[in-house]
Amino acid sequence: MKLGYLGPAGTYSEEAAYEYCAEAEMVAYPSIPAVIDAVEKREIDRCVVPIENSLYGAITDVLDFLVRTEDIHIAGELAVPIDHCLMVTPGTALADIKVVFSHPQSIGQSRRYLEGTLAHAQVVASLSNAQAVIDMQESDAPAGAIGPGRAAEIYGAEIIARAIQDNPNNYTRFVVLDDTDRPPSGRDMTSVAFQFSEDEPGLLHRALGVLKENSINMVKIESRPTGEGLGRYTFLIDMEVHRSDPVGIATIDKLREMSSWFKVFGSYPRMETLPVRT
Amino acid sequence: MKLGYLGPAGTYSEEAAYEYCAEAEMVAYPSIPAVIDAVEKREIDRCVVPIENSLYGAITDVLDFLVRTEDIHIAGELAVPIDHCLMVTPGTALADIKVVFSHPQSIGQSRRYLEGTLAHAQVVASLSNAQAVIDMQESDAPAGAIGPGRAAEIYGAEIIARAIQDNPNNYTRFVVLDDTDRPPSGRDMTSVAFQFSEDEPGLLHRALGVLKENSINMVKIESRPTGEGLGRYTFLIDMEVHRSDPVGIATIDKLREMSSWFKVFGSYPRMETLPVRT
Repeated sequence: MKLGYLGPAGTYSEEAAYEYCAEAEMVAYPSIPAVIDAVEKREIDRCVVPIENSLYGAITDVLDFLVRTEDIHIAGELAVPIDHCLMVTPGTALADIKVVFSHPQSIGQSRRYLEGTLAHAQVVASLSNAQAVIDMQESDAPAGAIGPGRAAEIYGAEIIARAIQDNPNNYTRFVVLDDTDRPPSGRDMTSVAFQFSEDEPGLLHRALGVLKENSINMVKIESRPTGEGLGRYTFLIDMEVHRSDPVGIATIDKLREMSSWFKVFGSYPRMETLPVRT
Repeated sequence: MKLGYLGPAGTYSEEAAYEYCAEAEMVAYPSIPAVIDAVEKREIDRCVVPIENSLYGAITDVLDFLVRTEDIHIAGELAVPIDHCLMVTPGTALADIKVVFSHPQSIGQSRRYLEGTLAHAQVVASLSNAQAVIDMQESDAPAGAIGPGRAAEIYGAEIIARAIQDNPNNYTRFVVLDDTDRPPSGRDMTSVAFQFSEDEPGLLHRALGVLKENSINMVKIESRPTGEGLGRYTFLIDMEVHRSDPVGIATIDKLREMSSWFKVFGSYPRMETLPVRT
């Protein structure tokens, strides 16, 4: 199987691809549209893309792409802990580090560690978490890099501290995209999107009422602009049911009836609930 | 009145500040946190910040800041059309333009015009829409700049085409922040945020039911992560009522009762409904 992801190698997206299927032939793409495009054109069988982070919320580019795309199905989901590691060239000690390289987002997520344990080092921004390790290896001064453990593996760096991010509950949820649905697994999720043609107050309440009547748990709701002006939204809902389940069929039929535009992104096995880390 | 905005001058944020109150003493700040901070510290009386774009959705930084901040109230709202203009040094003709400068977002929003009318010119990214006009004026080759009409006014450029963006329904909604509520105007909006302590299915449906029972129109719903892990959200709702109205009081009391955390961002006069442009 050919599995696409947002490159380069040594990022959390590559970690997610390996966690989903370590035996796959991995193919790195330079952008989210490029990797989804490759699935549509059947250059690759599937791809793994980030859809939501527990601190920063929805990856809206991916949601908007799913709304616009015809032949792409969500076929699975998985969550990857964003555990930043401090990496060095083997043999470098923590106290020796004069410069620390990382992507600006990872720097922002590790502020307390940088201001405490690494207060003696200068912080320098790199283009990606993978590039940070290369910058570290090419540095004249003794250096460290902050990023995923996977980057240390690839570039032969040594990890001297793990999970140094400020908030322990930093997870990114990824979805697997391909061209077909998954059969029922007994514990499934269905992702749908819909728009209403009128502004009638209470339409969203009525839509959620359809789920309640059918005892379906809604796991997530997002609203995205339709592009038709302020106040016009596409609603995206994740619900615990398979679309081929009789209750799923009834719910989808009713929601479709109420909407001016309706789309099922797919049914797929639900991931295990994640523990809250403190 | 001292009115803060996200600078530099010549951006859509400055346009919004002028539209809100042209007589105010304008103060530019380098970031959203800096301008909100300045209101909290009473360095300025109010600020105008973007909260939502009709194509790109919520400005999540601002929403998350409102959730975390104690003493800031939403005191008003206004929408600004994002009408990109093509500007030149006075006397330059469209056919002469060899280079076009603009912010990458404005370039992306004007792709059709660039690939059609300006296909003969090279496109170069600038740091802001205001900087694009300066880059244009300093260019050796005959140049144009894409951005708000306000930038032409400030820098003495000539506008040779208006509203060149691909999607005519490109609006940004701004909110006015200060330290007090506004009295009822007869047509008001109240923005609230809440979290639930349990995962009980149907809690959001029940919350929207409270609005329905009280015949209150919900204009907008957003979900933002609480930071406690995947699947934990803060819901943000805009509803057409004033918090001091008896119906508003009853609704807020019931919502507060159902939530583990609840906050009113403020009550303020609702802006006029915007026409959809085709």
